[in-house]
Amino acid sequence: MASGKILVAQGGGPTAVINQSLVGVALEARRFGQIEHIYGARHGVRGIVDENFVDLTQETSHNLELVANTPSSALGSTRDKPDAAYCHEIFKVLQAHQIEHFFYIGGNDSSDTVRIVSEEAQAANYPLRTIHIPKTIDNDLVGSDHTPGFPSAARFVAQAFAGANLDNAALPGVYVGVVMGRHAGFLTAASALGKKFPDDGPHLIYLPERTFVLEKFLADVKVAYERFGRCVIAVSEGIHDASGTPIVTLLAKKIEHDAHGNVQLSGNGALADLLCEEIKSKLNITRVRGDTFGYMQRSFIGCVSDVDQREAREVGEKAVQFAMWGDRDGSVAIKRTGFYSVDYELLPLATVAGKTRTMEDEFITANGTDVTDAFRMYLRPLLGSKMPDAFRLRHNPIAKVLHR
Amino acid sequence: MASGKILVAQGGGPTAVINQSLVGVALEARRFGQIEHIYGARHGVRGIVDENFVDLTQETSHNLELVANTPSSALGSTRDKPDAAYCHEIFKVLQAHQIEHFFYIGGNDSSDTVRIVSEEAQAANYPLRTIHIPKTIDNDLVGSDHTPGFPSAARFVAQAFAGANLDNAALPGVYVGVVMGRHAGFLTAASALGKKFPDDGPHLIYLPERTFVLEKFLADVKVAYERFGRCVIAVSEGIHDASGTPIVTLLAKKIEHDAHGNVQLSGNGALADLLCEEIKSKLNITRVRGDTFGYMQRSFIGCVSDVDQREAREVGEKAVQFAMWGDRDGSVAIKRTGFYSVDYELLPLATVAGKTRTMEDEFITANGTDVTDAFRMYLRPLLGSKMPDAFRLRHNPIAKVLHR
Repeated sequence: MASGKILVAQGGGPTAVINQSLVGVALEARRFGQIEHIYGARHGVRGIVDENFVDLTQETSHNLELVANTPSSALGSTRDKPDAAYCHEIFKVLQAHQIEHFFYIGGNDSSDTVRIVSEEAQAANYPLRTIHIPKTIDNDLVGSDHTPGFPSAARFVAQAFAGANLDNAALPGVYVGVVMGRHAGFLTAASALGKKFPDDGPHLIYLPERTFVLEKFLADVKVAYERFGRCVIAVSEGIHDASGTPIVTLLAKKIEHDAHGNVQLSGNGALADLLCEEIKSKLNITRVRGDTFGYMQRSFIGCVSDVDQREAREVGEKAVQFAMWGDRDGSVAIKRTGFYSVDYELLPLATVAGKTRTMEDEFITANGTDVTDAFRMYLRPLLGSKMPDAFRLRHNPIAKVLHR
Repeated sequence: MASGKILVAQGGGPTAVINQSLVGVALEARRFGQIEHIYGARHGVRGIVDENFVDLTQETSHNLELVANTPSSALGSTRDKPDAAYCHEIFKVLQAHQIEHFFYIGGNDSSDTVRIVSEEAQAANYPLRTIHIPKTIDNDLVGSDHTPGFPSAARFVAQAFAGANLDNAALPGVYVGVVMGRHAGFLTAASALGKKFPDDGPHLIYLPERTFVLEKFLADVKVAYERFGRCVIAVSEGIHDASGTPIVTLLAKKIEHDAHGNVQLSGNGALADLLCEEIKSKLNITRVRGDTFGYMQRSFIGCVSDVDQREAREVGEKAVQFAMWGDRDGSVAIKRTGFYSVDYELLPLATVAGKTRTMEDEFITANGTDVTDAFRMYLRPLLGSKMPDAFRLRHNPIAKVLHR
């Protein structure tokens, strides 16, 4: 057919650098003579089935560069999770528009969509090249050293905890910060990179990779509070008991057993508030504060890792190169090759699709409430350059006069 | 007596630039030959009555500069609000240590402490010079164009909303962001500076300067949602009904009337969650998300206005100059002299002490849910240089094939 048409779309939660990948595709594709039009689908797969396309070929490279540096999905995103029938609709539209290459920027659900569309095209003997471009702040894609979007979100979390620690040191008490990541604790663990001096927080880190026991948590907080006179805690939103039930559900139920039961305590701030309530009531600590980092950790404008920007751009560029010069569909993966350098490879879609990576055991300390130096070595180079640093006054005490 | 001793302390909530003022005092004071020792009190007035002093004269100027660029109160802070008896204790310690100059960096409560200590010294004929150095993210000090700390917090809020708007545009729905400021809406209003294109959010802003009516709020949200297909809302934590009762209390009561009543729904995430619940249930909108900006807006490391840094440094320096060359106690105030330039003056303590400024009417639109261009002109220069900017793809639609 040789229509010279390619299609790119963005799926799932936005990140600070997802537009770098989009622009990587758009600009790299323009370098190939056989590509005549670069279509972008508005709002992911939803935009494909609705034929809601824009022509990225008509954009200036100057504006594309500015969009690349803007967080969140410039084409719009979707939470639709296509099943086989939905994928068939996608394929029909691709056929109708004679799309020859399909690039989908997203997480593990998106890679599964790409896999099904790829199989559908093969079954129909339609010459389609499909490439999944990785993106997720959760860092939970199998087969990659890390995923674009995670380093910038990790940087936000590290900076937030560095600041929260300083605030907590000035006005001592207990601080609970709840971080995104239902199954993988990478982003919560990034809080440890906000730590500089030995007595800095976070003093305790709770990850979904370990079972959360409320009594153990309260005992941990008590010990840390007595030792440091304060306590900064990082908690993953995904913490759960031994049966896998989310802690937020358990705590909400416990408190609400007399109410009508129509209160949705599983809203955004609930876990932080409920944990704070437990600490206040059980440990008799007055100053207990909780924050839920919410959407800021993935969308805040102006907090980005330059390493993440560069790599997100490159996975977009490499996707086009793999598509044009390669002979198979796949998912672009980042491989670490040095301290710090990376290269890219194309994994089979089945390796990545629908699978979830969680934190490796070597990254979590034996007591389960801290990260190891191996994790610090893993994460530090990803955070990029110009990380803000915290300094403190040295202690030069003056002798007392009245109270001596 | 001529002991050559001065004392500096930090009170109230930390800010991103409060250490600039501390370092401004410490470095400027070293330039005066008659000053021999610069004492710092740990944890504000609490450290004074406890004689918990450190010698800032023994710090290197190099480390002081690094501390100046670190957020949160390096000396530690306190929430103690001294009454007359407490102020008498402060005065006794100052006398015992032969302190001749007392600098207190804080908000309107702190300025009231300085006022009482000043009066106590005069009544006792003790030669003490006391200066209040302004600081508060709430921007609620009377007599100043604005207060150090506010511009950096405002920049955080503007950047957070610029990002939240992009996220909300990618995955449309309703987003509620709750911002600090119990009585003054300046910080919540700063959300408007995150807006660039005409259809950008925040689409609605709710300030404590205006009475909050739930039915009106829901009607506003409905109109905006129908118009933009989404809605981003900035809400001050201090919103209240006509009687002055906080909305968080009213909503929590309404929901909880059957429960034991021991649930503290007035915790941090409560207002955002309760407003989201109202929108979901009354307007039948599925995707409704709430964030509470919490401690990040005052402590996040790496988001600071360079204008704020400079001015916070200068109010510290000017405090020392006013103390050494002036003939009265007072509170340092920022006066705007151009677009954009400032100068400093020393206000009588009684002008500032214990008073609260709220947003001027000219800054709020007639409908009460937006800010005016006068406010944009007021705030923009304070945010400083290198504000991140958001760009979008231009709309170049492709003709439909299947659905035409």
